[in-house]
Amino acid sequence: MTLRFGLIGTGRIGQVHAANIARSDEATLAWVADPFVDGARQVADRFGGTVTADPEELLGSGGIDAVLVASPTPTHVDLISRSIELGLPVLCEKPIDLDIARVDALRDAVRSSGVPVALGFNRRFDPGFAGVRARVAAGQIGPLEQLTIISRDPAAPPAAYIAVSGGIFRDMTIHDFDMARFFLPDIVEVSATGTAVFDDGAREHGDFDSAVVTLRAESGAIATIINSRHSAVGYDQRLEAFGSAGMLSVANAPTSLVSLSTAEAVEAKPPYQDFFLERYAQAYVDELHEFVKLVRGEPSRSPSFEDGRAALVLADAAQRSASERRTVRVSPAD
Amino acid sequence: MTLRFGLIGTGRIGQVHAANIARSDEATLAWVADPFVDGARQVADRFGGTVTADPEELLGSGGIDAVLVASPTPTHVDLISRSIELGLPVLCEKPIDLDIARVDALRDAVRSSGVPVALGFNRRFDPGFAGVRARVAAGQIGPLEQLTIISRDPAAPPAAYIAVSGGIFRDMTIHDFDMARFFLPDIVEVSATGTAVFDDGAREHGDFDSAVVTLRAESGAIATIINSRHSAVGYDQRLEAFGSAGMLSVANAPTSLVSLSTAEAVEAKPPYQDFFLERYAQAYVDELHEFVKLVRGEPSRSPSFEDGRAALVLADAAQRSASERRTVRVSPAD
Amino acid sequence: MTLRFGLIGTGRIGQVHAANIARSDEATLAWVADPFVDGARQVADRFGGTVTADPEELLGSGGIDAVLVASPTPTHVDLISRSIELGLPVLCEKPIDLDIARVDALRDAVRSSGVPVALGFNRRFDPGFAGVRARVAAGQIGPLEQLTIISRDPAAPPAAYIAVSGGIFRDMTIHDFDMARFFLPDIVEVSATGTAVFDDGAREHGDFDSAVVTLRAESGAIATIINSRHSAVGYDQRLEAFGSAGMLSVANAPTSLVSLSTAEAVEAKPPYQDFFLERYAQAYVDELHEFVKLVRGEPSRSPSFEDGRAALVLADAAQRSASERRTVRVSPAD
Amino acid sequence: MTLRFGLIGTGRIGQVHAANIARSDEATLAWVADPFVDGARQVADRFGGTVTADPEELLGSGGIDAVLVASPTPTHVDLISRSIELGLPVLCEKPIDLDIARVDALRDAVRSSGVPVALGFNRRFDPGFAGVRARVAAGQIGPLEQLTIISRDPAAPPAAYIAVSGGIFRDMTIHDFDMARFFLPDIVEVSATGTAVFDDGAREHGDFDSAVVTLRAESGAIATIINSRHSAVGYDQRLEAFGSAGMLSVANAPTSLVSLSTAEAVEAKPPYQDFFLERYAQAYVDELHEFVKLVRGEPSRSPSFEDGRAALVLADAAQRSASERRTVRVSPAD
Repeated sequence: MTLRFGLIGTGRIGQVHAANIARSDEATLAWVADPFVDGARQVADRFGGTVTADPEELLGSGGIDAVLVASPTPTHVDLISRSIELGLPVLCEKPIDLDIARVDALRDAVRSSGVPVALGFNRRFDPGFAGVRARVAAGQIGPLEQLTIISRDPAAPPAAYIAVSGGIFRDMTIHDFDMARFFLPDIVEVSATGTAVFDDGAREHGDFDSAVVTLRAESGAIATIINSRHSAVGYDQRLEAFGSAGMLSVANAPTSLVSLSTAEAVEAKPPYQDFFLERYAQAYVDELHEFVKLVRGEPSRSPSFEDGRAALVLADAAQRSASERRTVRVSPAD
Repeated sequence: MTLRFGLIGTGRIGQVHAANIARSDEATLAWVADPFVDGARQVADRFGGTVTADPEELLGSGGIDAVLVASPTPTHVDLISRSIELGLPVLCEKPIDLDIARVDALRDAVRSSGVPVALGFNRRFDPGFAGVRARVAAGQIGPLEQLTIISRDPAAPPAAYIAVSGGIFRDMTIHDFDMARFFLPDIVEVSATGTAVFDDGAREHGDFDSAVVTLRAESGAIATIINSRHSAVGYDQRLEAFGSAGMLSVANAPTSLVSLSTAEAVEAKPPYQDFFLERYAQAYVDELHEFVKLVRGEPSRSPSFEDGRAALVLADAAQRSASERRTVRVSPAD
Repeated sequence: MTLRFGLIGTGRIGQVHAANIARSDEATLAWVADPFVDGARQVADRFGGTVTADPEELLGSGGIDAVLVASPTPTHVDLISRSIELGLPVLCEKPIDLDIARVDALRDAVRSSGVPVALGFNRRFDPGFAGVRARVAAGQIGPLEQLTIISRDPAAPPAAYIAVSGGIFRDMTIHDFDMARFFLPDIVEVSATGTAVFDDGAREHGDFDSAVVTLRAESGAIATIINSRHSAVGYDQRLEAFGSAGMLSVANAPTSLVSLSTAEAVEAKPPYQDFFLERYAQAYVDELHEFVKLVRGEPSRSPSFEDGRAALVLADAAQRSASERRTVRVSPAD
Repeated sequence: MTLRFGLIGTGRIGQVHAANIARSDEATLAWVADPFVDGARQVADRFGGTVTADPEELLGSGGIDAVLVASPTPTHVDLISRSIELGLPVLCEKPIDLDIARVDALRDAVRSSGVPVALGFNRRFDPGFAGVRARVAAGQIGPLEQLTIISRDPAAPPAAYIAVSGGIFRDMTIHDFDMARFFLPDIVEVSATGTAVFDDGAREHGDFDSAVVTLRAESGAIATIINSRHSAVGYDQRLEAFGSAGMLSVANAPTSLVSLSTAEAVEAKPPYQDFFLERYAQAYVDELHEFVKLVRGEPSRSPSFEDGRAALVLADAAQRSASERRTVRVSPAD
């Protein structure tokens, strides 16, 4: 039986989900909602579904089995809240909200509802990162001692975006906090350093364009996150798990098998993929598949509401650490 | 307007084409023929189309705009012949036939018909090989002097297959002959060395399991093809274009971005892709797209019937060279 | 004219210097001092020089033009002090001392003496690191925004060594602090996280076996140092300079050009070099050569006494940061 | 006891040997002969030895234990002949001679003399090639089925050199023939293709600037040699041993650990080493060491006079194959 999806939000990431739902044998696109109704219409024309400008109409339609929330962040809490009231499982894009208080206010309702709520931490489904985690778990490199995550976007967003982004830690590093927790769930301390070295937009809004975060796990293992809002060479997404018996590394994804060698330089390859839609194309497919399994009550790798909250706890701690210039203790699971 | 395809043959490669036709915005699967009618039915169930056991019914149905021939080699000449009589464009899997005499008998009819006939040399559409050729043409490495093609299948086919394969040069190297011609169309001499070092099936049928072929172009450039019927590390498909100003290389396709480093070995990656269906997945998509353009009368990169014939001329010459132990002169275009 | 060297200390690193002095066209080994006089004798037998158990005899001999101090750390301050009194240029192994107070007590004397004093930060002379710095300075990657230094020793030292080492920051990270200053001389803040995850010796002495240090430069650029006292894959010495226009990376040094591909793994290489004597062999040669130039009054790349002091200031700050869990402000040049 | 060497010939390669002899603990440079006596004098000034313009004076001096022949090829046969008459072991640069008849005339004398005669096939001592051979012998990739040798010089020699070189096969490929025999001693067939695509000097003298040679071993294994007289990217020296269970590859030697990534290209490295003096520096050292062991009667990896002859037999066969356009049978050991 295929799952009938209601998609809320038809921006860049909503379109990716729409295409994946349409292509999946397990899902169909039943409803598409976006206040910008032309966007909803274009998506429905390509991938199917009834169109509405009003998410409430979609939720109350009775024609959907699950909700995919890809609308702007400030709408997430309400849409999750409403969905679980209606007993509709939700796959919600990250972050849950920029305000931990609002997340916490929703927390009990999610817990007690028993309705599946999954967070869109797509990178967990990347075959590279997931593969390394599985191999670490299998003991291939012994106990994990250090984790290094290099994560740089190709280009800084516009200043207008930065103004409402919640800052680099809540907006961008949030993915890396989740990745760190994917390997080391028991983070107890956060130290962050942020600077604005190239982006006037970040500087004006008191935000950072570059940051380094150090996370200490209960076990003593240390995770390091290195971020930049831009990268001339393309989307820079690397990870290295260092254990007592070896290392597992995830390299950047090549865009070609071709290399050029001349009298000036040898083995030169073309720049890396442009951004997350290309780099994590397969991850989005697998994310959807795991969410379908979650809804069906099967074992699933979907990150939970709690995972979404824990990443935000780390982001808040990093923000505080960077501004107060001290290490911040956390207990994300509490 | 979408092109209605009639697919003849629903084995491994026929299924790939069926899936690509079904996924394409430019094409639909209208008819599916296979004497093994269950195979046809399964394909039609997944990808659409009317089923028949008889290719003739498909060709005469009036419901198709183009034919995709993916049936066994001995049927190719008749099916091409019949298609062009009916004015139906054909995309035919390689080789045209194992017997150059039969190919030549068809040659004038193809020429005079004016009906588009394309050969399924899928590797020409691989982004790596096509990219290198474009960059050579753009002068990035100066005049091409040497071309090295390493092409090794993961595992030798069964002896029964080898018995009817026409030998390694006509069956396997044929792709590499076309690749050599893709870069150096004007081949004038062929020298081939073949041995059977590991495969009893090849030895019993007087065939080779390993071969090296040297091709000299009119320009003086030399192409070297290195073949093996097996490869423990996976499908080994590499190419290097060497020019007076540099080299362009196509590496094997990694199956993962992950590498493992331990006290025994560092930077170890998982084995290469298993075989051509994975390695050339994108190439098959592009091959179909280019054929659609050919049928529409647009500029197209589709290899022609003449390309199919020329590769066979080189294969025949290699066979003769290897058995008579001498260089064989050729003029594939005559 | 060749420089007559007096070598004090004939342990592992003293022997390297002795060999390099002997091989150099610019230097000869004139005197060798070590309280363990058998060690001095063995070095002199191979590389020349008059032997003594007493450094004072060497310094006062009148037969040397420069002093190379490779004796234990606690002797450095006195030996530098005595050398400059005698007007003898000194190349002293790092660190100057573990106690910044003792270093500061020597500081004015060094300054006012006008005698060249160079510190043995050998990594500055590594062709890889030096090359990246020169290319950064030449603007190849635009303004430097992030510097990542991964530095892991192959195996933890014995607990007895750790007890007197001054701790990981003063003993091991000191090299990386200097490397960070090599690229970003104007460090203003230090944040450090240390843990003892595998080494009981470190734990017992309140030391760390793993550490991550974040350094902020006046310019806003951030340097990250990732350390471990052990590495199963061999000596792990990497650096990445990230600028607005690109990246320059220094990979680990391969010990062989050979890679092995099998059905289990492809392109596997042998582990990295064992330790610093191999990895930095050329750097030690160049270090000596630059010191000879310094003594001759020629332009030289030798790191100064002030560089040695500044690295210790950063090490002290890291120690404080890690224990007090806060960012520490520094002004190493004051 | 150190071996007293007489060096004949003080050109580029003679100077390398002189330096290695001088640096070795096992050898000293006792005599240096060159008709261009200034060259001999310069070498002796740096590395020791009595100077003479006359090799005969060196050979008859009574002051040497072994002869190193680094003079022009036409002098090799006479110098070997004279050395063995005097009972002096010889390490002679390749080739023995360009004329197999002259080599054969010397063959019995060498055999019956019992005096050690070693050929300067330096590449056998390269740690990469020697390592691969040892690992093949240890069974790491199963039975060897294909060997691929890519060997390209950085730049073509002057036309005057080509005129007396004996042709590309005897002058340049000779090293690769020996390398093929190093792995597959039992070569039975030779097929060669040569062209002159870029070098007028080669064309004028009826020589080739590019060549591909296929060698078939008794076992059925095939070796392929790909040669060019020039290479824009630097000295191109690669080898791949392909067996039933895997591959062992020797990559080009990087000249730096640094790679550059920009918006145009990523992971670009500097060009390869310029030529053999750099690429095979360690091999020349090991070659000398193995020859010393040979002279001492210890087990040695030195290639023999017979190895030198066998490579020439293959070169002659390749020359014939390329001009007569046929496969040539050989029995190099007869």
